[in-house]
Amino acid sequence: MKHLKLTDNTSYDGSQIEPLWAFKTFGLKDSSIVSWIGPMEIQPDHLIDFEDVGLEIKGDQMLHFIIEHFDVQPADLNLCYHRQRIFVMIVKDILNDFGMTTTRNGDDLYFKKIDNKKGKLSVSIATCSASSMKIHFALNLTENGTPTDVDTAALFEVGVGIGAVQVNEIAETACDIYIEEISSIKSDISKTKVF
Amino acid sequence: MKHLKLTDNTSYDGSQIEPLWAFKTFGLKDSSIVSWIGPMEIQPDHLIDFEDVGLEIKGDQMLHFIIEHFDVQPADLNLCYHRQRIFVMIVKDILNDFGMTTTRNGDDLYFKKIDNKKGKLSVSIATCSASSMKIHFALNLTENGTPTDVDTAALFEVGVGIGAVQVNEIAETACDIYIEEISSIKSDISKTKVF
Amino acid sequence: MKHLKLTDNTSYDGSQIEPLWAFKTFGLKDSSIVSWIGPMEIQPDHLIDFEDVGLEIKGDQMLHFIIEHFDVQPADLNLCYHRQRIFVMIVKDILNDFGMTTTRNGDDLYFKKIDNKKGKLSVSIATCSASSMKIHFALNLTENGTPTDVDTAALFEVGVGIGAVQVNEIAETACDIYIEEISSIKSDISKTKVF
Amino acid sequence: MKHLKLTDNTSYDGSQIEPLWAFKTFGLKDSSIVSWIGPMEIQPDHLIDFEDVGLEIKGDQMLHFIIEHFDVQPADLNLCYHRQRIFVMIVKDILNDFGMTTTRNGDDLYFKKIDNKKGKLSVSIATCSASSMKIHFALNLTENGTPTDVDTAALFEVGVGIGAVQVNEIAETACDIYIEEISSIKSDISKTKVF
Amino acid sequence: MKHLKLTDNTSYDGSQIEPLWAFKTFGLKDSSIVSWIGPMEIQPDHLIDFEDVGLEIKGDQMLHFIIEHFDVQPADLNLCYHRQRIFVMIVKDILNDFGMTTTRNGDDLYFKKIDNKKGKLSVSIATCSASSMKIHFALNLTENGTPTDVDTAALFEVGVGIGAVQVNEIAETACDIYIEEISSIKSDISKTKVF
Amino acid sequence: MKHLKLTDNTSYDGSQIEPLWAFKTFGLKDSSIVSWIGPMEIQPDHLIDFEDVGLEIKGDQMLHFIIEHFDVQPADLNLCYHRQRIFVMIVKDILNDFGMTTTRNGDDLYFKKIDNKKGKLSVSIATCSASSMKIHFALNLTENGTPTDVDTAALFEVGVGIGAVQVNEIAETACDIYIEEISSIKSDISKTKVF
Repeated sequence: MKHLKLTDNTSYDGSQIEPLWAFKTFGLKDSSIVSWIGPMEIQPDHLIDFEDVGLEIKGDQMLHFIIEHFDVQPADLNLCYHRQRIFVMIVKDILNDFGMTTTRNGDDLYFKKIDNKKGKLSVSIATCSASSMKIHFALNLTENGTPTDVDTAALFEVGVGIGAVQVNEIAETACDIYIEEISSIKSDISKTKVF
Repeated sequence: MKHLKLTDNTSYDGSQIEPLWAFKTFGLKDSSIVSWIGPMEIQPDHLIDFEDVGLEIKGDQMLHFIIEHFDVQPADLNLCYHRQRIFVMIVKDILNDFGMTTTRNGDDLYFKKIDNKKGKLSVSIATCSASSMKIHFALNLTENGTPTDVDTAALFEVGVGIGAVQVNEIAETACDIYIEEISSIKSDISKTKVF
Repeated sequence: MKHLKLTDNTSYDGSQIEPLWAFKTFGLKDSSIVSWIGPMEIQPDHLIDFEDVGLEIKGDQMLHFIIEHFDVQPADLNLCYHRQRIFVMIVKDILNDFGMTTTRNGDDLYFKKIDNKKGKLSVSIATCSASSMKIHFALNLTENGTPTDVDTAALFEVGVGIGAVQVNEIAETACDIYIEEISSIKSDISKTKVF
Repeated sequence: MKHLKLTDNTSYDGSQIEPLWAFKTFGLKDSSIVSWIGPMEIQPDHLIDFEDVGLEIKGDQMLHFIIEHFDVQPADLNLCYHRQRIFVMIVKDILNDFGMTTTRNGDDLYFKKIDNKKGKLSVSIATCSASSMKIHFALNLTENGTPTDVDTAALFEVGVGIGAVQVNEIAETACDIYIEEISSIKSDISKTKVF
Repeated sequence: MKHLKLTDNTSYDGSQIEPLWAFKTFGLKDSSIVSWIGPMEIQPDHLIDFEDVGLEIKGDQMLHFIIEHFDVQPADLNLCYHRQRIFVMIVKDILNDFGMTTTRNGDDLYFKKIDNKKGKLSVSIATCSASSMKIHFALNLTENGTPTDVDTAALFEVGVGIGAVQVNEIAETACDIYIEEISSIKSDISKTKVF
Repeated sequence: MKHLKLTDNTSYDGSQIEPLWAFKTFGLKDSSIVSWIGPMEIQPDHLIDFEDVGLEIKGDQMLHFIIEHFDVQPADLNLCYHRQRIFVMIVKDILNDFGMTTTRNGDDLYFKKIDNKKGKLSVSIATCSASSMKIHFALNLTENGTPTDVDTAALFEVGVGIGAVQVNEIAETACDIYIEEISSIKSDISKTKVF
């Protein structure tokens, strides 16, 4: 499993959740995580979460992760959502190490702001085709451009000193730990007696 | 999925990891978590982790969790290890809320003690039969009786004020969050567009 | 698994067999059965059974059932057809209890009419996406509007006293028994020793 | 899928539910149904249904069916219980055709006897190994030798004229219809459009 | 599993790789191999191998095989590629018997021509939907019309005396052996002890 | 996937086919092939192929391969037999390159000896547990010690100049190609459009 870091301010419009996006765009074979910083504005026809129909899902600057797994055939949406949860919990842990305590509800992270309002910090979805499992997870860096009808929070604005350098480190660490996690699970399987 | 709390100081000897233990012992049908406080001394013929062959795995007082899932057929050891990781990360989060910062390596939690030595706080294994997935996770409450050749740590002895009351709360909360987590994943599946 | 009963004479045009129809239309999460009385006229581009290409599949008034399962991931068309058969056999049993003896061939029910002609009483199909299994089953209430090139039969016209009240009861009972059946299978799994 | 009919009064002791029994005993390769008439007395160590621990499961003369499927790999206990239900419903239908109306609860058939007591007519279990799915289903022919603490019913004693000839026909028909059912499901899959 | 041989010079344009093509075109139910001789010119929107985007994939006369499997549900692309490899190795073996030694790299066969240039002899792809697994494999009969930027080889032009008669025999033998292979695997499963 | 070559004349007694043998014996984690030269005498209780009950399966000197896969969960005996066939065909190809033309029937290789008798050259079996897939394949190096009631052939005695050096090369090449094959299949999956 490889990690590719983009540096070109790619806008997340929802097309990146499609199967084989990383291969078609960057020639990345095998399972991968692509991370980058950029805006988000999801096109309605790219909507994956039917609960979001009619909602605006956007932000001016977010830290994006697109994960694709081919290791389980046929792809399994149940497993994919388990991996999504693991990824979100890894990010929660890292934010904690950066002095930022968040709460988690399913695949959403929240931060209690100075005014005691709980701000939504992240968006996430998982999906699959017959052969690949995909996860999108993104953290607000700024509240600019986020939906006006949702209380949001953002890494640059929570007042714990997270800037561009730290965001880079968060992205690197999250990807490293996640890749290692999936790998350690495979390794654990091969030392386990079953019934 | 049900949570059963035992109050009889059951000793974990490794037989509890066998499929259908909860049904055969307590008549518990369907997926379940059983939690209790008791000692641990694993009998060699109940060893599941072949890396542990020849090692002592024991402790005088531990908080035990035995999880069994029947929801995925045939049982899938890969998914089971994902669920184990999710459970461990939930416990890590709760300990954090109790003022106890731990580090995680795969399915193991560690605590840096006052002498700066990293003590192993937990043991865990996952396994399966053709029809059920099982997880054992246990936290040391005391270092008494833990193996002499391993640096261990224990909830009652880390100096953050965790006593019997708090351990009960940790157990309840961990089970509640885990059950809710698995349930929320099932729910997320049914709102997701796939390709 | 929930049962939703519609009362608005919805026309079955084949779009209801699409994945997540119940969630997108009624906000129904998790596995479900939706039942209603209404006409049927399948649009050619909504055809699922390629054997039906070029055929008219229609009726002026039918009792419809749309079943969706998310409990098995990835969705399994083989299992889905087994569940379809179970549903058809449950309906056959209930009709029997109402004094109406039918014969079954795969997923089709037939009734021998007063003129000794065997009339086709039902239509059915099963299909799936990567994440959900879907079943449509419908019983003719009247022969009006059924294809002219097929001998059909209809609940209201078989002369055993089935009217609107009985049809409601048949629908309720079929859904109750089916939901209980799937649930009892899950329960049986968790008491079974495997090899 | 083949049907083998035994004629030697084999006693069902529970060993016949083990994987590959038909191959090891009769050289039968591939999926199969074996049917025969004989007594039943299950040895405790051959018990598959943990709900039956401590119960007597026996009868002096029963019509037995042992089904084994290798068509789905790895074997799936969930699917196996679906097939068990289909088999039970097929038998219920056939008994109906012989003038014997039964009620079904999960995998059990009951008959309301002349004294209005509901007698248990059948026993059944499903199980699997990693590679095969097994079903045992048996109908009492006589109440002799059935457990004294259970109200039972028996084909020869329900007063609808079922004798040895009819039992043979019931066995043949049940096997034929079941084999055809599984085959027709496979066939339906290959004409179905999926999403 | 059936073999259908076409004799009408069908052009392979990529539409034949779609699920249920054999059923929709020829009424072929169940798993099948269709073989024929004809040209190939893949339409860009029928491209399955994203590595081939922008490439010409064509030839004036090729021996085509389209395989479809419904025996494993849900369809499994990993298994499908294993079957593709088995088919390619069967063809390699048969060509060897006809005096034509080839080398194989994954799903491609190569022939060292008289000028010592290695010519690509074949094209192949595997894919799946939720319910069916598909394989296309084709051998060049002539180098006419093959892409100008690829060194190709062709059965009629390798100088080992392969003509129309031999090609027919190669097609028949490959299909026979492949069908027998899949069947023998199913048979082997039912004699094997598992752990 | 790793290749381990043993040099200690280990006798194949059937215990090596058990799950996790490579981990328990050599600490090998993850999927692996172990190859070695040694005698074979299978203990009856280690018999996996129930067709072999009562037969002697032995030889004084054979080239053994034990393959274990953990990459597919739960383990799938059907896939395992496909991989077995691929391995056998790879060996057949390599023997061909060494001037030794064999015929294959399922998982058996045969060689036509100078007296025109077809000698069985190999033995093979595949099996699985809930979590691992195992293959044993072995080639006779000498006919000494092979069963007296079977016509056998042996690499050292077919008269094509295969000695110890060549056998080493055959083992290395077979393992290399097999490992590369499984790897290339994984890679092909991630470039394939599915329906």
